[in-house]
Amino acid sequence: MSVHVGIIMGSQSDLPIMSEAALALEELGVNYELTVVSAHRTPDRMVEYAKTARDRGLKVIIAGAGGAAHLPGMVASMTSIPVIGVPIKSSNSIDGWDSVLSILQMPGGIPVATVALNGAKNAGILAASIVGAFDKKIGQNLDNYKETLKEKVEDSAKKIETNGWRSALEK
Amino acid sequence: MSVHVGIIMGSQSDLPIMSEAALALEELGVNYELTVVSAHRTPDRMVEYAKTARDRGLKVIIAGAGGAAHLPGMVASMTSIPVIGVPIKSSNSIDGWDSVLSILQMPGGIPVATVALNGAKNAGILAASIVGAFDKKIGQNLDNYKETLKEKVEDSAKKIETNGWRSALEK
Amino acid sequence: MSVHVGIIMGSQSDLPIMSEAALALEELGVNYELTVVSAHRTPDRMVEYAKTARDRGLKVIIAGAGGAAHLPGMVASMTSIPVIGVPIKSSNSIDGWDSVLSILQMPGGIPVATVALNGAKNAGILAASIVGAFDKKIGQNLDNYKETLKEKVEDSAKKIETNGWRSALEK
Amino acid sequence: MSVHVGIIMGSQSDLPIMSEAALALEELGVNYELTVVSAHRTPDRMVEYAKTARDRGLKVIIAGAGGAAHLPGMVASMTSIPVIGVPIKSSNSIDGWDSVLSILQMPGGIPVATVALNGAKNAGILAASIVGAFDKKIGQNLDNYKETLKEKVEDSAKKIETNGWRSALEK
Amino acid sequence: MSVHVGIIMGSQSDLPIMSEAALALEELGVNYELTVVSAHRTPDRMVEYAKTARDRGLKVIIAGAGGAAHLPGMVASMTSIPVIGVPIKSSNSIDGWDSVLSILQMPGGIPVATVALNGAKNAGILAASIVGAFDKKIGQNLDNYKETLKEKVEDSAKKIETNGWRSALEK
Amino acid sequence: MSVHVGIIMGSQSDLPIMSEAALALEELGVNYELTVVSAHRTPDRMVEYAKTARDRGLKVIIAGAGGAAHLPGMVASMTSIPVIGVPIKSSNSIDGWDSVLSILQMPGGIPVATVALNGAKNAGILAASIVGAFDKKIGQNLDNYKETLKEKVEDSAKKIETNGWRSALEK
Amino acid sequence: MSVHVGIIMGSQSDLPIMSEAALALEELGVNYELTVVSAHRTPDRMVEYAKTARDRGLKVIIAGAGGAAHLPGMVASMTSIPVIGVPIKSSNSIDGWDSVLSILQMPGGIPVATVALNGAKNAGILAASIVGAFDKKIGQNLDNYKETLKEKVEDSAKKIETNGWRSALEK
Amino acid sequence: MSVHVGIIMGSQSDLPIMSEAALALEELGVNYELTVVSAHRTPDRMVEYAKTARDRGLKVIIAGAGGAAHLPGMVASMTSIPVIGVPIKSSNSIDGWDSVLSILQMPGGIPVATVALNGAKNAGILAASIVGAFDKKIGQNLDNYKETLKEKVEDSAKKIETNGWRSALEK
Repeated sequence: MSVHVGIIMGSQSDLPIMSEAALALEELGVNYELTVVSAHRTPDRMVEYAKTARDRGLKVIIAGAGGAAHLPGMVASMTSIPVIGVPIKSSNSIDGWDSVLSILQMPGGIPVATVALNGAKNAGILAASIVGAFDKKIGQNLDNYKETLKEKVEDSAKKIETNGWRSALEK
Repeated sequence: MSVHVGIIMGSQSDLPIMSEAALALEELGVNYELTVVSAHRTPDRMVEYAKTARDRGLKVIIAGAGGAAHLPGMVASMTSIPVIGVPIKSSNSIDGWDSVLSILQMPGGIPVATVALNGAKNAGILAASIVGAFDKKIGQNLDNYKETLKEKVEDSAKKIETNGWRSALEK
Repeated sequence: MSVHVGIIMGSQSDLPIMSEAALALEELGVNYELTVVSAHRTPDRMVEYAKTARDRGLKVIIAGAGGAAHLPGMVASMTSIPVIGVPIKSSNSIDGWDSVLSILQMPGGIPVATVALNGAKNAGILAASIVGAFDKKIGQNLDNYKETLKEKVEDSAKKIETNGWRSALEK
Repeated sequence: MSVHVGIIMGSQSDLPIMSEAALALEELGVNYELTVVSAHRTPDRMVEYAKTARDRGLKVIIAGAGGAAHLPGMVASMTSIPVIGVPIKSSNSIDGWDSVLSILQMPGGIPVATVALNGAKNAGILAASIVGAFDKKIGQNLDNYKETLKEKVEDSAKKIETNGWRSALEK
Repeated sequence: MSVHVGIIMGSQSDLPIMSEAALALEELGVNYELTVVSAHRTPDRMVEYAKTARDRGLKVIIAGAGGAAHLPGMVASMTSIPVIGVPIKSSNSIDGWDSVLSILQMPGGIPVATVALNGAKNAGILAASIVGAFDKKIGQNLDNYKETLKEKVEDSAKKIETNGWRSALEK
Repeated sequence: MSVHVGIIMGSQSDLPIMSEAALALEELGVNYELTVVSAHRTPDRMVEYAKTARDRGLKVIIAGAGGAAHLPGMVASMTSIPVIGVPIKSSNSIDGWDSVLSILQMPGGIPVATVALNGAKNAGILAASIVGAFDKKIGQNLDNYKETLKEKVEDSAKKIETNGWRSALEK
Repeated sequence: MSVHVGIIMGSQSDLPIMSEAALALEELGVNYELTVVSAHRTPDRMVEYAKTARDRGLKVIIAGAGGAAHLPGMVASMTSIPVIGVPIKSSNSIDGWDSVLSILQMPGGIPVATVALNGAKNAGILAASIVGAFDKKIGQNLDNYKETLKEKVEDSAKKIETNGWRSALEK
Repeated sequence: MSVHVGIIMGSQSDLPIMSEAALALEELGVNYELTVVSAHRTPDRMVEYAKTARDRGLKVIIAGAGGAAHLPGMVASMTSIPVIGVPIKSSNSIDGWDSVLSILQMPGGIPVATVALNGAKNAGILAASIVGAFDKKIGQNLDNYKETLKEKVEDSAKKIETNGWRSALEK
């Protein structure tokens, strides 16, 4: 089965966050590849990655980076497939605002689909929803996933309503 | 030809911004529909719109709203197709931060693909890139569009290099 | 005795904060119910909860949520009784700004009575003051509560003035 | 018919904003009084106003102020009826953040029901919803008001869907 | 010798910060009194404190508070002696911005001399400089204090220049 | 009569704001001098001004500056008399945050008494209150000034209460 | 004489700001070239520009961009000569924070020398100071320039001191 | 070999951050000196340091400071060689915004080359790039350093691609 989503990140230190995108894609049955590509430390590698993405069969790229995060925007400038950007709150970040704004505020013509700070899991789900819009099985997987989310909330509501909130807090 | 993109906004007053998404889709050859759906003023209408979107053939929804912008996230909670959120800087907005954060910072499980403040044009291009990842012709249109962007920059660079920046400023 | 206040929250993980609203209402003699209702994970449940609130005899709803917090505003859009919103600083929040702004900055026509970040205790007191404006006994309880607050400050002031601030610090 | 809502503001210059609260209350059939009370320029007047509010029959106070806005919180400290705070973006405000935060972030024990920046209209509606929770007729007026909001959105949607968005923009 | 500076704070929990003002005044030879006065929990006590301050011989008041900090501004509204405000970063503060802005952004006519977040030590020094502007001995103490600050920096510079920065880091 | 207050600013372009400090001092009967001293463009002049201030009889210095505003803090580092800092929102300021924070957040040992953004009028009143704490006549002038503020509010309140708010708005 | 400074910007619309860098360099006697290079619209052109800069004799590059400003950082990743970044407040910028943070907060290893928002003039002076550190004549020009700044301040101070601030305001 | 870079900081407590600039310069073969100079505690020492810098052969000064950070800007006002400013997030900083803005937002005429919050390492590399623009050997060292950065990323990419991301996470 072909690989539809490419996950890249600026540094291996982003892996604990970005692996949540991989897990989400696995859960939703979407094939992916994952590697490290740095806009600032390996610009040539980034150009190569972005320009060949479409021909390698990728339908979506998920790119995560912290601080002055240029990876998602630069990749988006060199491919026509959708790029999802994940702002990461790194150690010397100014509360995460730097990566949020340098991914979100792209100029006219070059969009990046930005998710929440450290929102790699949602990036994975969003990538799956893009694939799922054209692939019935993945779409069904997403519907099932939403159903699971709902059931979890309903379960915890039932327990609180039956046993009182104090018993829920004690756990 | 079927309609692939639904553009909705919380109020007709958002139309001057949101119509840029429509124009971008027209330029890129993607069919769309456009209407007004308010999360707060017409919640039932919103539920109806979101729940029927997939079956009506939509592949992507673009939702724009200002202030405490709940439309994109609420629609995303009720469909599995990708939702693109456009934060709009409305009159009593606190510099746009309110709509940016209430669209971007979605909880785990329910992503919204957020674009820049007032970035409706980019929302249109992003929707086209999602369709284009699975539709060769739209993909080609996007490549051509990027080529045009490049040529405009190169043209203005050439003029400045040839005639000097003072002549460019005077225009 | 009838239940006058409904406390809801987006996730059971909000309970440690939101239980402070329950405790405040108990202290002030106001009956309440408490459960979990998620705007994004259980939208239908939320619609049901909001639309039946008035007929079930509720006078006020307290709704807490973090991140892109849509629960208070969406509930407010579907009922005419007052809704108090509690912004919660959750783990990937951008310093709490996201939940504050997505609850506070509601559009014209659909107000949410917003309290401080993590201010569930104050939400409980505010709900009691709404009930107390029409119920003499609850109003009296609030007056007594304020008297207690005053006495605590006066006590600590007296001790500092008598024994010096160094002894107060050592405790 | 008795007066249920008191509207106060720190300065007559706040009247263009605060009069929207009065208009909303008139539309919803709630009696109100309106005057100027400054926390910083007339502290004694403020004490008098707050302490006598309940006995004069008020059920809710709406207080608006800009900059370091102390009026809502100080009034709330001296009465047990609910106080709604309206942050106002005044001329030397730092983008409105100052009044938002000095009204919203009240300490435990003394809540202020805060609405959006310049949200006086919503303050009026919120006050009406508090009265309406205990007064069937006002409650009904609110339901009708919500119906009107809904119809306006549906009308504009219908026109756009019928005539196309370009005709809506031209108007 | 008469007491020239009054130090007040909204809650005993502010004492670990506010005691630094007391220590600074002791070091600079200025007499002071210190107690707890809450704007929101003991408004009458606050009015009393502020209105009698001048007649009790105070020349300056230092007032510290966190969150929606109204104490410094309200005291300033009821006395003509200078009031120094100390913003305190309390537990549910939004990074301290709330107390900074609700102390700093006072309206025209009622100034508060604001110092840095948690800057109680500087509040003590500022109060001493106000007294010292009219009292030669205190003025001299301040000059000596500045000399000490200078010498400490010069000492550490000398050690680093002589022994290298690595030895300074190891300590 | 001797000059007690020195008003300085970083550039003549700050004069429209800073002249409000002069007007306040004139109204309150305090003698002052006013000139331009730039921390960055005339550092030697600034050193000279700060170091001789006390001996020239000044009791307070008011220093205003915009952007990365170093004038108030640098002057404070070179004199022991109190320095009042006025943050000014200049043209390329980032909403005034830059000058607010670079004046307010002084390190331990070197306080600056900071007033609101563009708050030169309040700086003048604060300087007068410092002088007035030791000078009965100036103290009396301040009491009278506060009385005037109160009367203006009471007048406008009376008119609104008598004639209704609509007539006040029309003016 | 060889060209030492390259000025580039993301779009011709940045020219009114960026031309101030050119004017500063002309005033200080430093040769420069100026053109348009877009990180997002002409990524190949940017790579080419950055990689050949050193060999073409450039000693410094000044790069200006707005929004999610990637040009300065990307150029810095591909050359070892110093890159000065100019954040530009463009039309849909969030108050300029986006371009400031996406230029300033570069990761370890790839610095960008950032100047103030819209600070192109200072970028020109900084570039001159880099050249001037190794070129006596340019260094001398900078000293003269500083002398001029000083004289302008002293002149305006003199006029104000002689004729009073009222006459300076009237002009 | 002559010393080309001077590293200064406002307090010895900044040394753990600022020593990273020293280490970077050592790695890149640039000679430096390092000491403590405080703008506020040793203003005379700062004046002396800045005014003699050029004649002592320095080509660049790196100045780090926290809070209302005036050291970089004040040094820049008294020398014509380039000054690199390092904002430091100190204990009572407001999330680092204070030092970032008071270093970055310098007025026209007096630039400071600002790097990221706590970005001392990048300050060292930037200083080296300034020296390296005129010194072939240092320029070569920088090229080698960039090559090393690239190789590290490529190595970690290779491992992840070969062994899977799970094995990289486990380490």
